[in-house]
Amino acid sequence: MLDYFFNPSSVAVVGASQTPGKIGYDILNNILQHGYRGAVYPINPKAKEILGCKAYPNLVSVPSDIDLAVIALPAAAVLTVMEQCGRKKVDSVVIISAGFKEVGPHGARLEEELAGLARDLGIRVVGPNCLGLIDTKSSLNASFAAGMPLDGHIGFFSQSGALCVAILDWALGENVGFSRFVSLGNKMDISETEMMLSMGQDENTRVILGYLESIEEGPPFMKAARQVAQEKPIIVIKSGTTAAGAKAASSHTGALAGSEHAYNAAFKQSGIIRAESMQALFSYAMAFASQPLPRGARLAIITNSGGPGILAADACDRSSLHLSPIRKETADRLREFLPPTASVYNPIDIIGDASHERYEKTLSVVVQDELIHAILILLTPTASVDPTAVARRIVKLARDADKPIMTSFMGERKVRAARKILQDHGIPGYDYPEDAIGALDAMLSYRRWREKPERQYRRFEADTAKVREIFASVRRQRRQDLIETEAREILRAYGFRLPESRMARTTKEAISAASEIGYPIVMKIASPDVLHKSDMGGVRVKLENDAMVEEAFFDITSNIQRRQPEARILGVMVQEMIPQGKEVILGITRDIQFGPMIMFGLGGIYVEVLKDVAFRIAPLSVESADAMIRDIRSFPLLRGVRGELPADIEGIKDALMRLSQMAMDFPEIIEADINPLLVCPEGQGAVAVDARMTIQA
Amino acid sequence: MLDYFFNPSSVAVVGASQTPGKIGYDILNNILQHGYRGAVYPINPKAKEILGCKAYPNLVSVPSDIDLAVIALPAAAVLTVMEQCGRKKVDSVVIISAGFKEVGPHGARLEEELAGLARDLGIRVVGPNCLGLIDTKSSLNASFAAGMPLDGHIGFFSQSGALCVAILDWALGENVGFSRFVSLGNKMDISETEMMLSMGQDENTRVILGYLESIEEGPPFMKAARQVAQEKPIIVIKSGTTAAGAKAASSHTGALAGSEHAYNAAFKQSGIIRAESMQALFSYAMAFASQPLPRGARLAIITNSGGPGILAADACDRSSLHLSPIRKETADRLREFLPPTASVYNPIDIIGDASHERYEKTLSVVVQDELIHAILILLTPTASVDPTAVARRIVKLARDADKPIMTSFMGERKVRAARKILQDHGIPGYDYPEDAIGALDAMLSYRRWREKPERQYRRFEADTAKVREIFASVRRQRRQDLIETEAREILRAYGFRLPESRMARTTKEAISAASEIGYPIVMKIASPDVLHKSDMGGVRVKLENDAMVEEAFFDITSNIQRRQPEARILGVMVQEMIPQGKEVILGITRDIQFGPMIMFGLGGIYVEVLKDVAFRIAPLSVESADAMIRDIRSFPLLRGVRGELPADIEGIKDALMRLSQMAMDFPEIIEADINPLLVCPEGQGAVAVDARMTIQA
Repeated sequence: MLDYFFNPSSVAVVGASQTPGKIGYDILNNILQHGYRGAVYPINPKAKEILGCKAYPNLVSVPSDIDLAVIALPAAAVLTVMEQCGRKKVDSVVIISAGFKEVGPHGARLEEELAGLARDLGIRVVGPNCLGLIDTKSSLNASFAAGMPLDGHIGFFSQSGALCVAILDWALGENVGFSRFVSLGNKMDISETEMMLSMGQDENTRVILGYLESIEEGPPFMKAARQVAQEKPIIVIKSGTTAAGAKAASSHTGALAGSEHAYNAAFKQSGIIRAESMQALFSYAMAFASQPLPRGARLAIITNSGGPGILAADACDRSSLHLSPIRKETADRLREFLPPTASVYNPIDIIGDASHERYEKTLSVVVQDELIHAILILLTPTASVDPTAVARRIVKLARDADKPIMTSFMGERKVRAARKILQDHGIPGYDYPEDAIGALDAMLSYRRWREKPERQYRRFEADTAKVREIFASVRRQRRQDLIETEAREILRAYGFRLPESRMARTTKEAISAASEIGYPIVMKIASPDVLHKSDMGGVRVKLENDAMVEEAFFDITSNIQRRQPEARILGVMVQEMIPQGKEVILGITRDIQFGPMIMFGLGGIYVEVLKDVAFRIAPLSVESADAMIRDIRSFPLLRGVRGELPADIEGIKDALMRLSQMAMDFPEIIEADINPLLVCPEGQGAVAVDARMTIQA
Repeated sequence: MLDYFFNPSSVAVVGASQTPGKIGYDILNNILQHGYRGAVYPINPKAKEILGCKAYPNLVSVPSDIDLAVIALPAAAVLTVMEQCGRKKVDSVVIISAGFKEVGPHGARLEEELAGLARDLGIRVVGPNCLGLIDTKSSLNASFAAGMPLDGHIGFFSQSGALCVAILDWALGENVGFSRFVSLGNKMDISETEMMLSMGQDENTRVILGYLESIEEGPPFMKAARQVAQEKPIIVIKSGTTAAGAKAASSHTGALAGSEHAYNAAFKQSGIIRAESMQALFSYAMAFASQPLPRGARLAIITNSGGPGILAADACDRSSLHLSPIRKETADRLREFLPPTASVYNPIDIIGDASHERYEKTLSVVVQDELIHAILILLTPTASVDPTAVARRIVKLARDADKPIMTSFMGERKVRAARKILQDHGIPGYDYPEDAIGALDAMLSYRRWREKPERQYRRFEADTAKVREIFASVRRQRRQDLIETEAREILRAYGFRLPESRMARTTKEAISAASEIGYPIVMKIASPDVLHKSDMGGVRVKLENDAMVEEAFFDITSNIQRRQPEARILGVMVQEMIPQGKEVILGITRDIQFGPMIMFGLGGIYVEVLKDVAFRIAPLSVESADAMIRDIRSFPLLRGVRGELPADIEGIKDALMRLSQMAMDFPEIIEADINPLLVCPEGQGAVAVDARMTIQA
């Protein structure tokens, strides 16, 4: 996949220059200088030869086939070169040139034209407005980056060329190797999704790193990520989390949704590890690229000083890892050679006068304790220890270890050489213990995601014809907001349990409906224009007899007439009074990138004031439905407090998945709330009491 | 204060050794090697001369006065040396020797004996079991650390010697200077509190850094910190946050309190900046030591690349800073020289081809915009920029700036030299933009703390004699838990508003009490043994007439007899029914280090399930009472949601401060809850409905 980009037999540089400092010079120079073994054709009508290579006036004049063309000409010239690519049957092109979408409407038009031409000619494009790409296996550096990364197993793609520059420089300074390095630029054709899939297939890439500011298309990205992440960790830093202004929305779900929620949900659901900072991105990359994943959460800390040991234990306590118990056999073996004031329990403190031999003996014992899933070795550069000797012993012992081994040698001057030894041999070395623990934590949560059983999806029977009919009728009336009876009909079509209910246009109809349903009953205004029924005095509960119904009918209709005179009143809904239960809110909203998103929260102030909600992208698997219910802080309330019965979690899951299916079946649903869904005690299901829905015009 | 420790005219090293590698050699060598100008006396009975200094057999034989003695002998020999110090009138001693409290009961006894002797002789002690201390102004390095820190303005004290070693090595690697460097060891005499005060007085120290595992005495520590922090920032990393096991406690307050809450509250109340990691400690130290505090929250970001600019904006969004608007005049001046595709709004993107001149021009304009409170300069090492030249221009312009200027030059090899230039000239340089923002955030919150008006304390009239009388009666009955009537009497003595209430031993008494109070009324079991009255069926509300009272009396007493047969029933309380309001919980608990601690939270599930509580150390100032109410996540509920009236925050503050005064007046109160305090709408006060209290046996 995308093979010609990374392993071409021949490369042409269109716009190759003879002048050092020009991009067209730097690219050619990079290709020639870093060991690329294929044919190289500089294209420049004014030169005979550049950097020792014969130059050609244009692509068509090159006598052999060209696998990859790199274009570094002004934007205005690119269309013509693309036409030549078509004639020459070059189907892989990197467009370095800037001056497209990123400079405004004029550039955007040019980019569209270019994209159309590329599609017509069947040419795949990386860029434009990018730094180029690098593959260390084929020694191809088709970029104007300064320098070539070392060989390694990290594949990196970035939407920011500047970040490529910074990361390359960091990697060279820290001796971190890469398999591939791709600047995606404007993503005119090839986006993060295809790049991720291609790196997923690349044997040389073990860890995929990405910097993203946006995602072109959510669903295929998630699908690709889910597939690739089964094999290789994908670590992404996503920037642009700053809210782009409050979104105008009429439902709770809409008001609380936001692209941050969507990205977080999408990453969570597809196994992507999200790095919250540059620091975390690098920390994770080092660990994932070189160490096995921990089999579990039990960490052992080996240290030659108390303070850093406690700091590491604190960080462990804040993570999903925990300090491992130490088997008695292990403790006994440690006691044989450790001084009496050492601690053989976790953190294992081999105290300040420890030498490299003591480190070695301790690690060789600890690494064999099968209770322990991961080891963190701390070192303070005391007078009695030779940090480089310790580093060498760790390298030796780590070779056969079946668990991750991380290090934090604290200080700077005295530990620099030791850190380099560790890094060169694939042992991650961190400035501070907290970073090592953060990386292990990410590894553990990735492993847990990967070990989850195959995602299950449930399909429910639904009367979609009925729903289509209702939507058609709403559209005919030039409405977007459904009235309650319509929303209820739709929920019924999707198998939701609803309270019994009748529409009443007169007091008499209301009384007769009430007697059919049976007292006590609830009454609610039926109007497409009244959104917060309770707040407007449009709801009455616990009505016990005909007289109360009569009074309520009058109150409700006159309240609405007074408070919202413009509202169209269709009548009053007479409803069965629901048994006691916990009120939760379910919702649908649409994210521009990811499409339908499902919301869950506890009713009332939990959603509105405390914003205690969880989001997932539809379709919802059984596992995601379950996970999102447990995600909210107020989840313990559903399990029951102070002797209450636990609420029916299965009932909520069922409702969430039905709602998800509805959102997938009907893209015209822009927003919907089931508020409240009344959840009965365990085993007794849940009832959708009230619902609102808005569809596209 | 502690002057002889840091600026002695003469130093004796007891246990000075001729053998390199021995601690007694290293200390003497450090004193001689780093420019100390006072007299130096090696004490060693077996040597005539060590390292060119005349040696003496013991302290008494030294012919001149000795200001400071450093003892590096085995623990067993230290007592004798201390006696000699007494005879020689040496009143400042650093005990390096290990083998005391840290090795177990035997060492602890030895340390106690030593402490007693020192007290008797009037000798002040740093240590034992420490690395020693350093003062760069007097060029005194009385430690066995390897190396001498550069001159600087950071004072550092640490409870871990290892951390001193690591930090010293880091500081030397990063060119960060220190004024003082103190290893506190076992804190037998001089603790963090005195050290902090002494550094507060030291002209050479501008920022105080501390590593603490515990605090010896909470209240004096807080007092000292509050005083010093008015002048100098104090940044502390406190380790050992891992919960030491759940504390057995009978009240909500007790169950939720914990030493982490106490430390956080104490730090917050005394202006200490808490660093959550080693990384943060260093980041903050660099910024505080070299840059002015920001006057406000408005940050400008200058960058030569989009990606890092967005990442910085994201980090800004997560902090208490925000992106500054840019004045039109500033934008116009920037437009004069920036290319058209640059962004003159925040983040100010001077784009990829920026040279050092463009950086300089931009900064010189931005620094003058008085809207902007702080500036962060980002640099990606592109081909067109010379990072060292940019660094030099920043250094020049920062000299006269009245706002903090921070930098993050991203990468490694290409920016290393530039970072060093910045660091050498007091411009903090961070690996990643997120760290720079974190440090600015800490500076801003410190400035805000310092600008708060002088803390106000309110004193309420209280009938302490009455309280003493009740406690005496409880003790006579060999109880620790107060019954409700007693707890209510105590609250009344402290001026709390309580519902009217009568004790009834019979149905008849209950009916007569109810008619005195007036219907509707509430009834509650009166028993010292029933803690959760509602849960046990011991409460009835909204009783409207005599018949209901009769029935309730029977129900309540029989419920308790059935469910808790061993409970002593004293009768039933008949109470006024309180108007509607919000239920909150107030509590007292005691922290081992900090003494009485006040808790606040919303009633019911907010405290019990969501653990949404705030703590402060007593005595509570008006400001702290206010702040702790606003600290809880559910605070918006008190302001009123969905058209409710706002609750009476002043009433809660009043109650919190009365409770604080009670906790200070009566140290025998171990735990107390007012649960609920019913808060009426604004202006109408709050009523203590129920209370529990436990006193010391």
